[in-house]
Amino acid sequence: MEVVFIGSGNVATQLGLALKSKGVIIKQVYSKSYANAEVLAKKLDAEATSDAADIYMDADFYFYALKDSALRSTLKKLELPAGIHVHTGGSISIREFEGFTTRFGVFYPLQTFSVNKSVDFSVIPICIEACNQDVLEKLTDLGGLISQKVIMLNSESRRKLHLAAVFACNFSNYMYDVASQILESSGIPFDIMYPLIAETTEKIKTLKPYEAQTGPAVRMDDATIAKHLDMLNKKRDFKNIYKVLTKSINNRHKNTK
Amino acid sequence: MEVVFIGSGNVATQLGLALKSKGVIIKQVYSKSYANAEVLAKKLDAEATSDAADIYMDADFYFYALKDSALRSTLKKLELPAGIHVHTGGSISIREFEGFTTRFGVFYPLQTFSVNKSVDFSVIPICIEACNQDVLEKLTDLGGLISQKVIMLNSESRRKLHLAAVFACNFSNYMYDVASQILESSGIPFDIMYPLIAETTEKIKTLKPYEAQTGPAVRMDDATIAKHLDMLNKKRDFKNIYKVLTKSINNRHKNTK
Repeated sequence: MEVVFIGSGNVATQLGLALKSKGVIIKQVYSKSYANAEVLAKKLDAEATSDAADIYMDADFYFYALKDSALRSTLKKLELPAGIHVHTGGSISIREFEGFTTRFGVFYPLQTFSVNKSVDFSVIPICIEACNQDVLEKLTDLGGLISQKVIMLNSESRRKLHLAAVFACNFSNYMYDVASQILESSGIPFDIMYPLIAETTEKIKTLKPYEAQTGPAVRMDDATIAKHLDMLNKKRDFKNIYKVLTKSINNRHKNTK
Repeated sequence: MEVVFIGSGNVATQLGLALKSKGVIIKQVYSKSYANAEVLAKKLDAEATSDAADIYMDADFYFYALKDSALRSTLKKLELPAGIHVHTGGSISIREFEGFTTRFGVFYPLQTFSVNKSVDFSVIPICIEACNQDVLEKLTDLGGLISQKVIMLNSESRRKLHLAAVFACNFSNYMYDVASQILESSGIPFDIMYPLIAETTEKIKTLKPYEAQTGPAVRMDDATIAKHLDMLNKKRDFKNIYKVLTKSINNRHKNTK
């Protein structure tokens, strides 16, 4: 089985490594930037190219792991080979491929990827969608090579899943970032937070997040909230986040406490 | 060793159970509401009371596990026995006890507690502060009974730690709550998020949260952000949170990308 990656970022890197580890041949990495293509190509034992005319024509799958806004312009630039074309985006419709090829789909791994952090793909839900039954089966097989959890999901549901993931992953990580900045200013090492963070994520396996909610906002502890806002006086950004989230938690819980 | 709890909520429950499991006798639970005192007293094999005049006089420690705003009014109501008086609050100064007793301190476990979810206390950082050396030693010993991580922290640092914890725990849990509501509306079970959430918290053990940040906000993916905001049109609350956090992540990363 041969795969070409269009794009060379976090998703291409980790997905490429996962496929390669299962014996899939990564034939080529294409990126607008040759330097970026080369970095990933080396990791995957693949060729690198930044020339649209040089795309390898005989791969089974072409993976588009690009910023959403770059997909269409890239499709316009390439002459699409006969293989199956899939993008890895949470929020892009499968229909983006229409008019460019007749064999296409979506292969969206629900995970947060960084170039330098490897992940265990076997537990990652892979959400697939396909233009027809044949492509669906091929994507199911490919997904099954690297994950135990291949799920069929249409574009609208996937879009909602991606939005939910932005809250559960990207925004919660930013909460950690804010916390680390607050601690840094008083010389307390961030690792003091690990047991708290671990328990916060452990709790939601037995309680709904709604039931697991604790803190000054949910217990309407106005004295503490006022102190916290006062401490954030010089960090307008954080103060604003604190206010908006506290108000929203308040609204969510006010009828139950 | 004998302990009295003033307050009967999440912290009193879990701390009481942890102390009891190490052989500490929980003599009494006081709460304004007798019913609440009784619920916890039963779990701890303790007496229940809602009468300030009935407070047991010979305990070694009196734990005030109350809403911040309730501490002072409760202190005014009680005639304080001779034992050591400590509160468990992150944001309340040790000085709240001044004028009420001469033996006092703080015993703040950095964790999120719910009445019905037990926790492993041995890994929980316990932040202590004391009015003098003698009380400090007694609190250190008591903390050491239940945790391997007893830390001395003054009121100002503890206040910052508590603020950081609100972001890292309470606010990140609310992000899970928002995600679960978004998924609910399309019938996707929340447990599909577990591997993503686990990886998000795993990453920050090897990368700083700042380095671990992913998502449309950090990669300035305006097309995806616009789609997400559009999907949140009917949820003004969530849309506002999305905007505020995206803007803040943008500001934090704009000089590095």
